[in-house]
Formats: sequence, C-alpha cells, structure tokens
Amino acid sequence: MLREGQIVFTYFHFAADEPLTQAVMKSGITAIAYETIKDARGNLPLLTPMSEVAGRMSIQEGAKYLERPFEGRGILLGGVPGVLPANVVILGGGIVGANAAKVAAGLGANVAILDINLDRLRYLDDVMPRNVTTLFSDRHNILDCISRADLLIGAVLIPGARAPYLVRLEDLKRMPPSSVIIDVAIDQGGCVETSKPTTHSKPTFKVNDVVHYCVTNMPGAVGRTSTYALTNVTLPYVLQLAKKGLDKAVQDNPALAEGVNIRQGKVTNPAVAETFGLECALA
Amino acid sequence: MLREGQIVFTYFHFAADEPLTQAVMKSGITAIAYETIKDARGNLPLLTPMSEVAGRMSIQEGAKYLERPFEGRGILLGGVPGVLPANVVILGGGIVGANAAKVAAGLGANVAILDINLDRLRYLDDVMPRNVTTLFSDRHNILDCISRADLLIGAVLIPGARAPYLVRLEDLKRMPPSSVIIDVAIDQGGCVETSKPTTHSKPTFKVNDVVHYCVTNMPGAVGRTSTYALTNVTLPYVLQLAKKGLDKAVQDNPALAEGVNIRQGKVTNPAVAETFGLECALA
Amino acid sequence: MLREGQIVFTYFHFAADEPLTQAVMKSGITAIAYETIKDARGNLPLLTPMSEVAGRMSIQEGAKYLERPFEGRGILLGGVPGVLPANVVILGGGIVGANAAKVAAGLGANVAILDINLDRLRYLDDVMPRNVTTLFSDRHNILDCISRADLLIGAVLIPGARAPYLVRLEDLKRMPPSSVIIDVAIDQGGCVETSKPTTHSKPTFKVNDVVHYCVTNMPGAVGRTSTYALTNVTLPYVLQLAKKGLDKAVQDNPALAEGVNIRQGKVTNPAVAETFGLECALA
Amino acid sequence: MLREGQIVFTYFHFAADEPLTQAVMKSGITAIAYETIKDARGNLPLLTPMSEVAGRMSIQEGAKYLERPFEGRGILLGGVPGVLPANVVILGGGIVGANAAKVAAGLGANVAILDINLDRLRYLDDVMPRNVTTLFSDRHNILDCISRADLLIGAVLIPGARAPYLVRLEDLKRMPPSSVIIDVAIDQGGCVETSKPTTHSKPTFKVNDVVHYCVTNMPGAVGRTSTYALTNVTLPYVLQLAKKGLDKAVQDNPALAEGVNIRQGKVTNPAVAETFGLECALA
Amino acid sequence: MLREGQIVFTYFHFAADEPLTQAVMKSGITAIAYETIKDARGNLPLLTPMSEVAGRMSIQEGAKYLERPFEGRGILLGGVPGVLPANVVILGGGIVGANAAKVAAGLGANVAILDINLDRLRYLDDVMPRNVTTLFSDRHNILDCISRADLLIGAVLIPGARAPYLVRLEDLKRMPPSSVIIDVAIDQGGCVETSKPTTHSKPTFKVNDVVHYCVTNMPGAVGRTSTYALTNVTLPYVLQLAKKGLDKAVQDNPALAEGVNIRQGKVTNPAVAETFGLECALA
Amino acid sequence: MLREGQIVFTYFHFAADEPLTQAVMKSGITAIAYETIKDARGNLPLLTPMSEVAGRMSIQEGAKYLERPFEGRGILLGGVPGVLPANVVILGGGIVGANAAKVAAGLGANVAILDINLDRLRYLDDVMPRNVTTLFSDRHNILDCISRADLLIGAVLIPGARAPYLVRLEDLKRMPPSSVIIDVAIDQGGCVETSKPTTHSKPTFKVNDVVHYCVTNMPGAVGRTSTYALTNVTLPYVLQLAKKGLDKAVQDNPALAEGVNIRQGKVTNPAVAETFGLECALA
Repeated sequence: MLREGQIVFTYFHFAADEPLTQAVMKSGITAIAYETIKDARGNLPLLTPMSEVAGRMSIQEGAKYLERPFEGRGILLGGVPGVLPANVVILGGGIVGANAAKVAAGLGANVAILDINLDRLRYLDDVMPRNVTTLFSDRHNILDCISRADLLIGAVLIPGARAPYLVRLEDLKRMPPSSVIIDVAIDQGGCVETSKPTTHSKPTFKVNDVVHYCVTNMPGAVGRTSTYALTNVTLPYVLQLAKKGLDKAVQDNPALAEGVNIRQGKVTNPAVAETFGLECALA
Repeated sequence: MLREGQIVFTYFHFAADEPLTQAVMKSGITAIAYETIKDARGNLPLLTPMSEVAGRMSIQEGAKYLERPFEGRGILLGGVPGVLPANVVILGGGIVGANAAKVAAGLGANVAILDINLDRLRYLDDVMPRNVTTLFSDRHNILDCISRADLLIGAVLIPGARAPYLVRLEDLKRMPPSSVIIDVAIDQGGCVETSKPTTHSKPTFKVNDVVHYCVTNMPGAVGRTSTYALTNVTLPYVLQLAKKGLDKAVQDNPALAEGVNIRQGKVTNPAVAETFGLECALA
Repeated sequence: MLREGQIVFTYFHFAADEPLTQAVMKSGITAIAYETIKDARGNLPLLTPMSEVAGRMSIQEGAKYLERPFEGRGILLGGVPGVLPANVVILGGGIVGANAAKVAAGLGANVAILDINLDRLRYLDDVMPRNVTTLFSDRHNILDCISRADLLIGAVLIPGARAPYLVRLEDLKRMPPSSVIIDVAIDQGGCVETSKPTTHSKPTFKVNDVVHYCVTNMPGAVGRTSTYALTNVTLPYVLQLAKKGLDKAVQDNPALAEGVNIRQGKVTNPAVAETFGLECALA
Repeated sequence: MLREGQIVFTYFHFAADEPLTQAVMKSGITAIAYETIKDARGNLPLLTPMSEVAGRMSIQEGAKYLERPFEGRGILLGGVPGVLPANVVILGGGIVGANAAKVAAGLGANVAILDINLDRLRYLDDVMPRNVTTLFSDRHNILDCISRADLLIGAVLIPGARAPYLVRLEDLKRMPPSSVIIDVAIDQGGCVETSKPTTHSKPTFKVNDVVHYCVTNMPGAVGRTSTYALTNVTLPYVLQLAKKGLDKAVQDNPALAEGVNIRQGKVTNPAVAETFGLECALA
Repeated sequence: MLREGQIVFTYFHFAADEPLTQAVMKSGITAIAYETIKDARGNLPLLTPMSEVAGRMSIQEGAKYLERPFEGRGILLGGVPGVLPANVVILGGGIVGANAAKVAAGLGANVAILDINLDRLRYLDDVMPRNVTTLFSDRHNILDCISRADLLIGAVLIPGARAPYLVRLEDLKRMPPSSVIIDVAIDQGGCVETSKPTTHSKPTFKVNDVVHYCVTNMPGAVGRTSTYALTNVTLPYVLQLAKKGLDKAVQDNPALAEGVNIRQGKVTNPAVAETFGLECALA
Repeated sequence: MLREGQIVFTYFHFAADEPLTQAVMKSGITAIAYETIKDARGNLPLLTPMSEVAGRMSIQEGAKYLERPFEGRGILLGGVPGVLPANVVILGGGIVGANAAKVAAGLGANVAILDINLDRLRYLDDVMPRNVTTLFSDRHNILDCISRADLLIGAVLIPGARAPYLVRLEDLKRMPPSSVIIDVAIDQGGCVETSKPTTHSKPTFKVNDVVHYCVTNMPGAVGRTSTYALTNVTLPYVLQLAKKGLDKAVQDNPALAEGVNIRQGKVTNPAVAETFGLECALA
C-alpha cells in the first residue's frame, strides 16, 4: 500500500486516466512517470527499449498472422529457393521501423522502409541488410507500396502527438487479399484509419479482407526480454534517487525532473495539469 | 471421379493406408506418388521444397510460442541492444536444419546447429551468417546445448527410416522452464521422445514445462508459398508425362519410375507390396 | 607463317568457317581448338572464364545503356536513399547469370535470377547477397518479371545447342519503355527473339522501345582481364604439350584430345567432319 | 512566361551568370535557388541527392571508360576468380566519395578512400564492405595510391569554395597507362589539374594517356532517378510555400530564407550581390 | 639538444614525472603534450588512434596467450567446424572495445560487449558482425559473462580518471581455468583489480590460474602501423604551428591551446600546476 | 602397457620411424594409423580437422610474429582507419589456405589466395569475405605477390607427396624487410626452400631478414580445440570397432581398412612395407 512520501517510479499515463490522477494526488506519494522522462535531445529514453521490442516483435507477429489458419494469405515471409519472398512495407524509419526492418530482412523478405527524414534513410541505407530498400514517404509511394504489401507495419510515432493516418479505409482495397497490418503505433492511436486496440488474447480482426493486429502493450508478450530491457534504462535513475534523494537527484538530472508528474499532492507536469484543468506546480 | 487408365500424380503414402491402397488398386488408375520419386543421388526431390518451407517456418513458430500468452518463456529471439538474444539449438544440418538456421540467425538469435556429417558442417560454416555455430552431434554436446536452449528445433530426418530419439523424456528437465521444442521430424515419428502429432488448430502441448509443437504438414499453413514451391518441382514430371505418355516417360526417367506405386491394379512399389503382403509388379 | 608440323592452340570455330577448315587442312599444322576441350564432367573449361567476364560485364553495360543519352530509361541501378533501385532480371543461373547477379546486387539493384535447376538456385540462395531473389524459370514467372524489368540479362546457354527463345517479340511490349536487354547468349543465337549480333563500335539497337545490346565477344572490351583469365586456363595444356609432345599429351589427357580438330591434314573432330561431309580421323 | 510576383524555385547559380541575374531582377519574380538553401548544420540539403547520384554513377562511368573501345586499359573492375580486380582510388570521403565507394566495392574492386577527416574515415570503416580501405589523405598517400589506380574518382568538394587540385599535371605520368579519372568535382572546378568540363555527348578526353571524364551535371543522364531524388528534398519546401505563403514560410524556416536570391527586383543573397557589385537587400 | 624557444610536440605526461617537468621548465622550450589536446566535444584526438591500435591488438594478444605453451587454456578463438568457438567478453564499448569486438568477431569468436551507454550499444548493434552481442554492463551481467569467458578484454577508460575495478580479485575464481585477461585499461590503472603493469619483454603473469596481460604502451609493438596512425592526427597541428607560428596557431585553435603544458619556463596546464603546487600561467 | 591382440588407434607415421615399426610388430597389437585412413574420394578425413586448426592458427601466429618485439616489421594486420592494413598472401586454397584466408579477412587484412585449381578459386570467390582476392598460382603471380607480402602463409600440401618449393631462397630478398612466413606445409617438408622444422619453445628463425615460423604439430598449442576436433572424426571409427570387432569393422568400412598398418606382427600397409623392405600382408 502506498504511503505519503514514497516515490513510485513506473509508467502512469495520467493524462489518459483522471481517477488515477486524483487517487495519486490524494495519496501524497511522488509519482515519477517513465513515459515523460525526456533527455537533452528531446528523446524519451524509457520508451526506447519498448519500441525496440515492439519493432522486432512486429515481424514475428506478422509472419504468424500471414499463416492460413490465422486467416492470412498463406505466405512465408522469406519464400524458398525458386519462390518469391513476401513484400514487407514499413511506414516509419524510427526505432520501431528500423528494428522491424532488421528482422524482416533477416527472415529473407523483400523490405521497403518509408520515412520523410532523408538523413535517417541515408543512415539506414548504410547499415541495413541489402534486401531493405529506403523510400521517401509520400502519398504516392505509400499507395504504390501497399498495393504489393503482404505485410504492412505501422511504425509512425510522433512524440507527444497522435499518430497520423497514413493508410485510410479506402486504401485497404488496394492491398492483396488476406494481407496483414501490424499497427505498432496503436498506443498513439494507430497510423491506419481502421485500427482499433486489441489484446493478446484476441489480437486480430479483419476489415475489407485485411487482417489487423493492433495489440496494445505488445512487449508484454515477451516479458523476460522486456523486463531486462526496461531495467537497463531505469536502473541509473533508481540509483540516483537512492543515492541522492529526490530533491538532489531531480536538481542534478533534468531528464529525471521531467519525469515527476505529481508531488506532495500537486500535479507538476504541464500536460497533465492542462488536461484536467489543474494548476501546475514546479517539480 | 477417377477412371481406369488415368494417371494421378500426388502424395499417396500408401504404406500407411491400406484402404486407400485397395481402393486405388481397384480403380485401375496409375498412381505416381510424389514421396517415392527418387533421383540418381538417392534424394527425394519432391520432398525437398516441403523441407525448406518447414525449416523456415519452424523458427517463426518457435518465436511465437515462446511468447508468454502462448505459455512460452516470454523471450524475444533476437533480444534488443543490451539484452541477450535467445539460444536456438537445431538438431540436424540437412535441408530442414539449414533453412531453420538461416532464419534464426536472421532474427538475431544465437544459433547452434548439430550434425554428425562434418563435411556438411564445413559447408554450413562457409555460408551461414556468423551467429550460427556448427557443432558435432553427440550425446554430450546435445545435452550441453539443450540445457541453454530457449528454442529447440528437431530437424533430424533419415530417409526411409524412423527419426531417432535424440532428446529423451528425462532430458526435458535440463531445458529452461517454458522453453519450446518444434519437432519438424514429427512426420517420421519425431526426434524427441515426448513428441506426439498435433494440428494447426491445436498445435502445442506441454510436457515437463516444455512447450511441444508437433504439427504434421506444417507447410499447409503457408499454402501459397508451398504450392508454388511444389509446382516448381512437379511440373517437369507432368510435362514429361504429357509429352511422352506414361510408358516412355517412365522408361526415360528412372526417378519417375520410382514414383509409380500402383499400375493396372497392381502394386509396383516394393515397400508398399511388402507392407501389405502383396506381390510386387514391375513399374 | 604456319608450317607443317606446328601446333596451333587457339579458338578456331571450324564448323562455322569452311575456308578456314580447308586452309588449315592444307597447312599440315595440328589445330587444337579451345572451344572443344571438354573435361570429364562435360564442362568446357576454356569457355568458363569468358562466361565469367561476360557475366560481370553485362551489368556495367546495362547500367550504361540505361542512361538517357544512350536511349535508356534514365534510371540508376542502385537508386539512392529514398528512391527505388532498378529491377534487374537475369534469365539463367549458370556461370554468366551468377556472375551478373553478384555484380548487380553489389550495385544495389533489386535482382531476380531465374533457372529451371532448383539445386543451382538453392546454392545461389546460400551464397548470393540478400538482394538477389531466386525464382523458378517458367513462362508465367518470366512474363511477370520482365513486366517490371528495367534491365534484362539473357544468360541462358545450353552447351552445344542453340539458346532457346525465352523472350519473344510480342513480350517486349510488356517491358517498361526504354528498358534494356543485354543478351549475353548471342554467341549461341541469343535467348531473346529480337536479338541480332552487334559490335563494340555499334553495340545497341532498339526494338519496340527496348534497347538491345547483343555484342558478340563481349570480353574483348576488357582484354587485359580476359587475357589473364584465359591464360590461367590454357597454360596447363600448353605446358603439357611442351613437356610431353603432342602424342603423349593427348594420350594422357582426354580433355586435350577433345580439342584436336585437325591433324596431319585430316579432320579429327566428328562435328566438324560431319558439317563439311568429311571423313573423321582419330585424334 | 514569368510574371511579377511569381515564385520560381529551382537551380539558378546566379553568381556565374550576370545576364540571368539581371533578367530575373527585371522580371520581378522571387527567385529561390536550390543551391543556396542551407540548414542549421551548414549542409546544403538540395545538393545532397545530386551528390549521391553522381557518386554512384561515377563508378559505372569509370567501368565503361576502362573498356578498350573507349580507350581505357581494358580491365574489368571486379576481375574474375583467378585474376586481380582493379584498384579504385577515391579522393574524398563525403557524400560523393562514400556513394562511389559503396558501388565500387559492390562491383568487387579493391577500393581505397582518402580523406583528412578521421572521424569520417572511422564511420566509413564501420559501415563499408570489407574491400574498402580508408586512408588519410596527404600528398604521400595520394601519390602512392594513384601509381596503382586503374580508376581514380575525384570527389573532393569544399562547400562554397573551389575544389583544390589534389592531382597535378605532373602526377599523371605516375598513373598506369590508359587509366581513367572521373572528376565529379568538376562543377566546383575539379580536383585534378587537367580536368576541363565535358558533356554527355563527348564525355572524355585524354591527357598523358589518362582518360578524363569531366561531365558537368552527371545526374542528368539518369533523369528518372534524379528527378525522384530531387523531388523528395524539394517537396517539403514547396508545401511550406504553398501553405504559408512566401513571407511566413521564409520567416519560419531559416533554411528556406537562405535560398531567396532575388526578390522584388533586388538581390538578397550576399555572395551574388558582392559578385556583381550590387547592394544586398534582406530576404 | 633542446634549446630555448624550440617547440616540442610529443607525449609528455608531466603530472607523473616531476623531474621531467622541472627540466623542461628550465630548458625554456615550449612543451605541447599530445595527451592534453582536447577538441570541442571533449575528445582527446591524439589518443584515439592509439586506442584503435590497442583495441585491435588486444585480440591477437589474447589469441596467442590462450595457447598452451603460453600457459593459456589451449583454445582456438574461432573454433573449427564441429567445435565451439571461444567466448570473448569485452568490458567497455568505446574505441578500444569496439575495435576489439570487430577483430574478435572476424576471428569467429562468440563475442559479448558490455557498456552502460545504451545509445552506444544500439550503434554497435547496427554495425557489428552478427556474432557480437551487446549487453548492459551491470554487476550481474559482468559476473555471468566472465564465468564463461575464455578471453576477457578490459576496455573501460574514463577520460581523465582512474579506470574502475569491474573485475575483482574474488571474481577470478569464477573464470575458466587458464583463461586470459588483456587489460588494455592498464595505462589508467586497469579495470581488473589484479592487473599490474607489464612489458613486451615479459608481458604476462598468472593470478588464480588466470593469465594477465597488462603491457603498457601496447601500440609500441606494431610501431609501423602506430606511427602512421599517430602522424595522421598530429600532422595538421604541426602544419598549423609551422605556418602560423605558436601564438597565432594557439589562438586560432583552442584544441592546440589545451596542449600547451609548459611555455617560457612556466607551467600552463592547470592539472600539472596543481600536481606540483606551481602557479598556472596562461597558454 | 600394450598387450597382444589390443587395437591401438592413433597417429603412428611408421614410415618415418623404423624402431617404432619393429617394436609394434613384436608387440602383437593391431596398429590402425589415423594418417592412412582414406575415404572413397581419396581424402584423409582424420587429417582434415588438424588442417583446419593449423590454417586458422597460422594467422594468429603471423600477427604475433609481425610484432616488433618478435623481430617482425611492426605492422598490425588490420591497420586502423586511415592506415593501410597488411598484405597477407596465402599459397594454396585447400583446407589450410581457406581457413587461413577466412581468419585473415576477419582481422581486416588485404588477402590474396593463390591456387592452380580454378574451380576451387571460384568457390572461394563465392563464399569468402570481400577482402579476399583469388589469384591463379603461377611463378609470375607468386613473385608479384610476395614482393608486397607482410605475411606469407605456406599452405600447399599435395597428399602423399613432398610439398613443392614455391618460394626459393633467392625470392626472399623480394619480400619486405622483417616480413613473416608461416610455413604450415612444414610437416610435408615445407613449401618454402628455407623452411626448417621448429618447435613451440623456439618457433622462429630469420633468413635474409624474413622471419620463418615452421612449427611442426601446430595444433598442439590449442589442445583443447584440437582434441574435440579430432574426437569428432575418430569417434565413428571407434564405435564401429567396438560394436563390430576388428574383422567386421574393417570389412564393412574400406576407409578403416586403409588405416590398418600392422596386424598380428605383420605390416599390412604397402608404403610402410616398401620403406623397410618387408613383405606386405593383407589387412
């Protein structure tokens, strides 16, 4: 049971949960939220490992749901000698997308990765296996790609904003029958118009003969890997809190300060405060 | 409906199905069985593509069943930066095993492939990615490997014989909890003592906290790829039959002759004949 | 000037040149032809290096003639980050095709290599870079591939026979406008119906808006490399002739014996003899 | 026809063309020049894709002009098994040089890339294929390298300055006979003393038995690829201009502001103004 | 012999050598020390090439001292087909560690590289061969790794500080018998508690049956390579001194200014001054 | 102590040791010699793993003896960014040579491998890393290569014959000063004229300023790896002897029969019998 003065350091997502926010304010604890810790370059270091896990997992999910018994089109991602491999299209070349591309290429698929950041595409061109093609992400290229996509990975995440709909309802009919979409961006609302959150127990649904996989919290399925990955990034903050105490730790490390959402009964994160019309105190 | 004089060219597996054998004998058709076509080097060319498909598929099945919701140990095959990848152990370096190794390595796993044929291991050492280690297959090495195996692929097939039990019931307790076995050799009885045939609708069961996946006819799940792969190898025979007629085709091509199992009501394959105590006619 | 008793060891191609045949018969020299030396496995070892050179060269020719000033479609084989690479389709997975594939893949193109020999495709799948896809060569796959081919390499050679027409006149209209065909098989008649021999001084022509490059003796353009490559294979025979004399060398080495076409005024090669209605003496 | 108030967004190179400058000043249009758009890091993002295209193209040009019929030394860049590949020396490890190296390595050549920026060489050492050697660029290493260079790529570009002469007239005699120089830096004056601009219709000339290829606007030959590459980088600016209008777009995006060269009849680029002794207005 | 007014530009390490400091002060020369030149990003560019050399060398030393006649455990780093390769564990993913990993992977070993900087590990995951696994460096992972390490590379260097002891005396007993430690960090005191400086003439000693190699100045053994590497980085500074003279060169280049340790008889480096209780003059 | 009737299965090399031969004949044991077991293809399967070990080891020996303290020329095989790697020349592309090339390439050296078997070079071209160049082995190429060789590996072994001298005394003066030769062929007499057998305790000597390393029984230094490698190949024979007894085992397995050198006091190997003028009994 939580007691006043305690520090709780975990995922909170207060802005999406008013009752939780109220309860934590009442409890008197200090709530430091993984998801708002932000480093000097504007990155969210405690979300990165989960993006890596989800990106890599997305291809194995796609491979599975392309199987006939799971309503997919019955195609093996890597093909075999003499038979074409599958086409995998990845929307977004960030952490999720790059990790998905690496795995899909490793499986032997024919991979296209789309992004609007050309410097990022240049780096990916340097380090990705040769069966990954980089492509500028505009409407024309997206439509061209999805018309051949056996597997589409939605990997567009805009920090702090809703993911844009890059694939619309009417686009689905261009996709091959029983192709598969894995919308990793579902936690930010998805980058496919027809995506709706699903769970590990019932992960998929079909719209216009396209299988949609939109499981929120994908990394939960590989908890052993995810836990190690998460501990690697949270441990340094925990050690700082333990060694220095809250005040000094927050003062020395601005990234940690960004993580403090509620302290001494007061909301200290501007976005949370604004969402619920509360005053925002200093961390 | 089949009529006398027709040629039917497909999988038959007569030796395992006496009623089928009798019915085909009565029908008067000529039955050419994919599974007994054998080339000059003793290979079974019409089984090869199915072994390729099954080998590649085995890793994506293993990846999936390692997920927590499928009772696996919750580990991602390739790990992420800072977290160890999974250990994949492949028993057998033939077509199934080599294809499994290629895919597992592509996913970023730490792969060991075991075989008793050192020339084969030398070739694999030349062409496999660097995260594949080749290892001589003896009891000591097998036990050592499985004690660290998150995923074990049974890929030992001895042409025309039952697969040997390389992993026994008592060995399972050495494996990590909730690790996964994919026994691709299940069609020849499996190379793991605890394997029992399963289906795509209920593919797994657990013995001693080890998930067993023993689906017979794995390639059926990726029918699109499998069909192309199969057609590539059967088409030349079909063309020979169409152009030359049965007699000339069989005379010119000894591999095709090996495929003729029943003709004009008579069994022409020695193994089938022996199984059912019938006389064996010439093809 | 040639004198009786001399041994001349070079390319002759007598069957295509009756005056040469007559002149050599009169001269009294012994003519050993590179092109008919055949080893125990039926290979033509003195042709292999020229196939390697031609295969590798074919891609740099294709790259060049795809340029706009050379009437090509103005596409760079490897693309650049954000822009798709070209599609290269290679008909034939033998020495010419494999060498072409290696180079095209190295340039960053998206490569498909087609052959009817699945064991060969399996080997190529093992050793080729990941942007090479192997595909069974049937009419359906050929038509599907050429409809996207920016560059098509004709690399089908059947030893001792005319190359088959795998691409017909009516197929050209499926190819993208100003795409390029390099028909390396032109020395055996070409594997594209519209191919006609050309020279290094006027290497290309257009049919149905497809650029055709059909230079015979392609390796001549890189004479320095070709000469070394050829000397590597001919030197051992020259040394045998020098050390042992003609009789003993031919007796000891059946491959060399296959090369003797004319000796002491008599034709000793059955094909040449038959072509000109002459008697065939023993080598 | 241009009308007052229109915005024209393309390459202008005003400083090299006084009549053009005068005409545009009179026309009343706003001239935004691709070549002067400069981002916060000092890069010229609208020149980058052309450098990528030219760098990759340079090797296929070099391969071609090394052929005997084009007066080159008759050597195949990748060699064949048993025969050495060509030596390719690339002066400059920037965008042009890195793209050239990637392609030359892909063709199988033995590649050396020289630069004075060791951090850049370290990155190239990490990502380039193994047949690329990085080398510090000093006079000693340059002379040593060119004495073995079958193909030399001039890829030294200093933003906003004339390229330095790294290879002088007297150095040419050290190069192998009939070797080839592709001077990609020709648009900035070339980094080889004997370079003079040429065109796609007559691309080469020889000095001291070394073939020089100095085509300005190399990317024009692969217009399809170049156009896509250019559109990828210009489109975002076009969209900003269209959405926000000139004033707001320029105000919001300093990179775009750098591109405005002439506006309302006045030169707004300091370098252009200085070149023609004109006053410089604010963009 | 040194004369007043001369500039000497080399390694000095004054803080560790008071007599040298005094002598140089008296000589009147200007002493610019390689080891204190520091660029804008805080790097020490004149130490980097020595770290690269030492990192790459560390593996060949390890390979050698693993041999039986050198008291190692008699294991070949890369194994052979059918026999497991050695486990190489590298503590630290900086310049030394990354160069060691590249070489160990090239030899075919099974490599783990540990660091606390996850962004660094992500980059290494992108560019390293597939037999390199990245791992977060915490006490648990270190102990787990060393218990399987045939070869351990100490590559943890903290600029300007003593290396931390990541492996303690009591940890040695976990290592396999006759395993080998190469402590490249020995110049900063070593990152293994039992390390003591050794020399090329007697490079190793054993503690608890673990071979320790702790040669200071490892790069001296490959002087030819090291000299070129060092000249590449020092030459630009030498040229600036030669062209501009000391005052102007130091003024224009802050990195060079950091290198001036003693000038006109006065210490100008704060750390050296503090060490010997001297006043610090301005460079 | 050996007793009559025992079977001893190990290396014997009787032909080089008459006292041993006599003693074994008297003892009454059956001596099966590893070195004369020969399979159907004429290979010596029990020598292959030792060739693999020696080939891989040769490069780490070479790297070490290139160090200055070991009298080498002080060059690091892989160089560093900005400094050229070493040139490694390997004479012979068989098992020793191919394993040496793989390791040298992995270390980052510039590798040339020479052989007269072009089919072998073609395979190596397919599977070796890109910094390995294959080259036809003739006197001209050998002299050209060794004039740039920092490290020369002698890997020419002709089964059952003395290795030929490919490098002669007078050739040494062409090699760079303090370069290194590792003559792995020393057990067959060496392929360098100046080679003389050495031991692990004093492994090298210098001739004409070239370091020679000619240790016989190189694999002994990595006994752990060598023992596993050897057991992998001998175990199947041991099992056959144990299960079937000598007579049946030898009868069923001609390779094993070739291994029997002495039985019931009589020499059964023709070469041994001939060497000592003894009668040869049947195995």
